[in-house]
Amino acid sequence: MEQAEVFTLRNMEDREALLKALEGARRAAILGAGYIGPEVAEAFRKRGLEATLLEAKDRPLPHWDPEVGALLKEELERHGVEVWTGVRVTAPRGSGRVEAVETSEGVVPTDLVLVATGIRPNVELARAMGVALGPTGALATDERMRTNLEGVYAARDVAESFHQVLKRPYWLPLGDLANKHGRTAGAVIAGKEARFHGVAGTAIFKALGLAVATTGLSLETALKEGYAAKKVFIKSRDGAHYYPGSQPLFVELVYEEGTERLLGGAVVAFGHGALRIDALAALLSRGGTVEDLLALDLAHAPPFSPVWDPLPIAAQQVR
Amino acid sequence: MEQAEVFTLRNMEDREALLKALEGARRAAILGAGYIGPEVAEAFRKRGLEATLLEAKDRPLPHWDPEVGALLKEELERHGVEVWTGVRVTAPRGSGRVEAVETSEGVVPTDLVLVATGIRPNVELARAMGVALGPTGALATDERMRTNLEGVYAARDVAESFHQVLKRPYWLPLGDLANKHGRTAGAVIAGKEARFHGVAGTAIFKALGLAVATTGLSLETALKEGYAAKKVFIKSRDGAHYYPGSQPLFVELVYEEGTERLLGGAVVAFGHGALRIDALAALLSRGGTVEDLLALDLAHAPPFSPVWDPLPIAAQQVR
Repeated sequence: MEQAEVFTLRNMEDREALLKALEGARRAAILGAGYIGPEVAEAFRKRGLEATLLEAKDRPLPHWDPEVGALLKEELERHGVEVWTGVRVTAPRGSGRVEAVETSEGVVPTDLVLVATGIRPNVELARAMGVALGPTGALATDERMRTNLEGVYAARDVAESFHQVLKRPYWLPLGDLANKHGRTAGAVIAGKEARFHGVAGTAIFKALGLAVATTGLSLETALKEGYAAKKVFIKSRDGAHYYPGSQPLFVELVYEEGTERLLGGAVVAFGHGALRIDALAALLSRGGTVEDLLALDLAHAPPFSPVWDPLPIAAQQVR
Repeated sequence: MEQAEVFTLRNMEDREALLKALEGARRAAILGAGYIGPEVAEAFRKRGLEATLLEAKDRPLPHWDPEVGALLKEELERHGVEVWTGVRVTAPRGSGRVEAVETSEGVVPTDLVLVATGIRPNVELARAMGVALGPTGALATDERMRTNLEGVYAARDVAESFHQVLKRPYWLPLGDLANKHGRTAGAVIAGKEARFHGVAGTAIFKALGLAVATTGLSLETALKEGYAAKKVFIKSRDGAHYYPGSQPLFVELVYEEGTERLLGGAVVAFGHGALRIDALAALLSRGGTVEDLLALDLAHAPPFSPVWDPLPIAAQQVR
């Protein structure tokens, strides 16, 4: 087995090697169905490859609640991606080059394997220097991205962020946060007043026709965190029902029973509509409630939403 | 001149009459370049008509700041709509049927005229009953849509709303607000606890390829209202620069000098990106500042935004 046929995507060199390997490939197996796996499945399908997505948990996007993963699975399958869930990958198989991956559910023939099962912060150098880790295992920082060591700053996927909903350090390796970390650290080092305000846990990605946006806590996470959490999940549309081309759009809201404080949510859309997650992220950053969501004057016109925006439609379901 | 060739769009009958008149028409003149005029110009162009948009003020969308109207004018002209601004319409001309409209800037030959110059609340019946008008000339209501008369409620385009930024009654005849008015009044009449939380002044519309979203106060309005207001206006993109198909996107932020309280803003996009106005509307509803906007954890992925969302990119320009 040549290592070259088992890929990760850490840098541009990985990308170049993968592009080269794709030239002769007809089938690809992808390990992990978080954000990267489905994105790469789309890219492989567009190149005409057969693609099989292998996920250890019981659904794609396992960090979020099941309805969202089910919509993603449907979209992947509609575009010819095979999705195997609850499957343990035991070994690649092949002589000279990869020919298949062996799994708990059977053998998946493949010409290459892409590993997208997540990352861990590489803290060894910092730890050796005496930089303190936080509760997440990543480097502890304050809102100026300072570590415990004078003159040592941490930024990007190696550093923790403050979580605006959980009110504690959180590790979230996403590109826009990495950029904000770096900008904050750079400004502080240059003697400017700058702060990184933390994360709400907002993320968005597109796989094939589907955009999936989430922010804050899923119901599963909220319950695990000890909140008396509940959720609503609705199907709406990204435009007026009579507007040509309007498509289904789904909203999940997670909230605390009693206080009705918003804890998180998701928007799944077959088009532009997923960006309305930003209004929910704005409420989360300030401890907003279901009533605060109903108070928002959101943008409406027939090409963009039903006469009630899907977010307040979901909020109405709480009552 | 037959009245039937000069149209407004108040109801379904107007629509049917207009559709009928369009059958034989080759050229159309539209009076007024607010939301309706550009939308109808799109519809006329799609039917193959020549369309001329006549606006009395110096730009389309005159209630908002000039940069936004300039982008709209460019888009209309790119699609073959003639846009005449600063023009006073004096009279229709024709014998038997309309043949042209006479204006301060010359004669516009046309087969029909659509009037979209705005509406006024029809308060005569209510006033005769003794229902009090508010400072805007529309019917005064409280947040339960009650008027001054016991048992008389007002809703929709005839009723005022509370403005979340101006903190006073405001008249805004938009469909989603009309619906919320009605739902609130109906719930209160049925004995339920319900409140209408007012408006931030949020609106969105699409004309041809362009989506224009605004919320709160324009700079012009804010200055007229006595705020020490300033604005930033930036050009960004609705996706990463390297993402296929990403398009220009423009953001305006209006804020109060000193406090940096957000007063309003606009997003102009050639695609899905205009909905991010909702995050700004969410901040306006709670008196948010430029710093609050920078604190938001907004959704980022290459199909949806540059690595910094265009809203915080604009907020950075304030400093």
